[in-house]
Amino acid sequence: MEERTEIAELGEFGLIEHLTKNFEIQNVSTVLGVGDDAAVIDHFGKQTVVTTDLLLEGIHFDLMYTPLKHLGYKSVMVNLSDIYAMNAQPTQITVSIGISNRVSMEALNEFYEGIYLACEKHGVDLIGGDTSTSQKGFIISITAIGEVAPDKYVKRSTAQKGDLICVTGDLGGAFLGLTLMEREKKIYLENPQIQPDLENESYIVGRLLKPEARKDMIEFFEKNEITPTAMMDVSDGVSSEVMHLCKQSNLGCRIYEEKLPINDESRKAAYKFGLDPTVCALNGGEDYELIFTLKQEDHEKITFNEEISVIGYMTELEEGCKLLTKGGNTFNITAQGWNAFQQ
Amino acid sequence: MEERTEIAELGEFGLIEHLTKNFEIQNVSTVLGVGDDAAVIDHFGKQTVVTTDLLLEGIHFDLMYTPLKHLGYKSVMVNLSDIYAMNAQPTQITVSIGISNRVSMEALNEFYEGIYLACEKHGVDLIGGDTSTSQKGFIISITAIGEVAPDKYVKRSTAQKGDLICVTGDLGGAFLGLTLMEREKKIYLENPQIQPDLENESYIVGRLLKPEARKDMIEFFEKNEITPTAMMDVSDGVSSEVMHLCKQSNLGCRIYEEKLPINDESRKAAYKFGLDPTVCALNGGEDYELIFTLKQEDHEKITFNEEISVIGYMTELEEGCKLLTKGGNTFNITAQGWNAFQQ
Repeated sequence: MEERTEIAELGEFGLIEHLTKNFEIQNVSTVLGVGDDAAVIDHFGKQTVVTTDLLLEGIHFDLMYTPLKHLGYKSVMVNLSDIYAMNAQPTQITVSIGISNRVSMEALNEFYEGIYLACEKHGVDLIGGDTSTSQKGFIISITAIGEVAPDKYVKRSTAQKGDLICVTGDLGGAFLGLTLMEREKKIYLENPQIQPDLENESYIVGRLLKPEARKDMIEFFEKNEITPTAMMDVSDGVSSEVMHLCKQSNLGCRIYEEKLPINDESRKAAYKFGLDPTVCALNGGEDYELIFTLKQEDHEKITFNEEISVIGYMTELEEGCKLLTKGGNTFNITAQGWNAFQQ
Repeated sequence: MEERTEIAELGEFGLIEHLTKNFEIQNVSTVLGVGDDAAVIDHFGKQTVVTTDLLLEGIHFDLMYTPLKHLGYKSVMVNLSDIYAMNAQPTQITVSIGISNRVSMEALNEFYEGIYLACEKHGVDLIGGDTSTSQKGFIISITAIGEVAPDKYVKRSTAQKGDLICVTGDLGGAFLGLTLMEREKKIYLENPQIQPDLENESYIVGRLLKPEARKDMIEFFEKNEITPTAMMDVSDGVSSEVMHLCKQSNLGCRIYEEKLPINDESRKAAYKFGLDPTVCALNGGEDYELIFTLKQEDHEKITFNEEISVIGYMTELEEGCKLLTKGGNTFNITAQGWNAFQQ
């Protein structure tokens, strides 16, 4: 029988102490961490960057196929991704959770293992949070804080006409992983005898359950003296993000279908599910890649980085947001990204 | 008939735009606010203070007797209170909400009116957040950020033996307001014909629904060159908080029952409900006052401030945490503050 410790035995303060006791501070800017009314950060000479995300069971994740350690890891990643998208380095996070009685101490430990692993890998300190019971479902609210040299942050609204549009990594994998998991869940619920068939699908499952925020890209930019003219992370889908860049920069764009980076495993999975890989790449969310614009004269600085694909360029506002297909047709790009209020 | 706008009509980005469009930046440190992946703050020459709180419907508030505007206001206050408890000035907040379909646009507008009012009164900028649907209940997660001159923040762990223990305002009112509201709710549910009897109870109802974080005290400290040796806010109850101060400072304390500040209206309400006003003052939570320790030689600096009561002093660890009653008896103080996991 599995070990199970009830959280009520510890109480709120005991719980916080238990969950944070093995956590060592990594940043000199973390003056005071967990255990007081607030944490204290010292970013003298740098600007502070702040972002926050709410993740709700049944809306953003399904515990039926999301291991808690992965959930902890991913919850941190989605926030760090927003910090990197500002061209900043994450330094601290706060983690608030609401949990129902059915969550055991062992389950919570696993969740925090994922949190800690993410923090360790990205050099981030956990500096505070809040814990509460919830009436229903697991609730996660994370705020990430980062630092950037004065005025070196990169917004969404500063792309220029003619700038190249680039994306990191590849697209659509997380959406295909989700499609697979939802399909397997349905089969399992109809007949619990059938074991999930995830063999050969580890790539897309990994894209869904273990996204990795692009710290490496921010480091690459710094090392190669690249400053994107505009940037954001790909959380809702490239269609949706490219339209944000256009709207906020008051420009149009042209995207080439053939340039969209799609992993072979994703492509195979798409065909298997009867889906168009291009549609998955454009509209699938949760890839947590970066999309950025770059002055044309900086093109050679990225040519040899295989993790970066140029997918199009910014145009005049009047030209609209267009997709040029492999067949030579031109379509308007519409934001079909994930909309939490219309599901 | 009441006007009702469905939130789905706006979508997530439309909703954020709608909710934040009238909000003007008040702090020069707010370099970039709502509308990008993250916000940017410039606290050059100061330290940054961060705190976060999760508020859940059915756990922390009951929409049956909590007007949404008050809820918005209070949600901000509980966070600002933590910033003041560090002897810091709040400057920015992020607000994340999870809402079910039964919440209309008009209801959400009211909630944000309360948020804005709190921000305006305390000179705080709303710089970001996240919105999501929730499967059940209204979910609120707020992170507050503040600033403090280098190393001028006040922790819980730095009280010294002999220091005076002081509290601001008065105690137990919010708990009595909650007791009243829960009683009236029960009567109403049993017989909806009976209208709530809140006449003459506006003081305790106000303490519950409209707490005011003690910005005035931090300003008083600065003006009078007072630095508390330790400080925290009273959210769980003075018993619980005083034990935190003792535990973290490795000391004991002695509290005098007769010195506990209790408002006449609270006292009357306690008697009416058959409760001991002292127990309400010690164990009732959510007063959002400050409890702090002070060097004895600073006593005269606070004598004429009627908002501050000296309720006892810090002793050696071995002497324990003691309450000296009006009758001359001595009891051990136990933390009966609110424990979310044992309700």
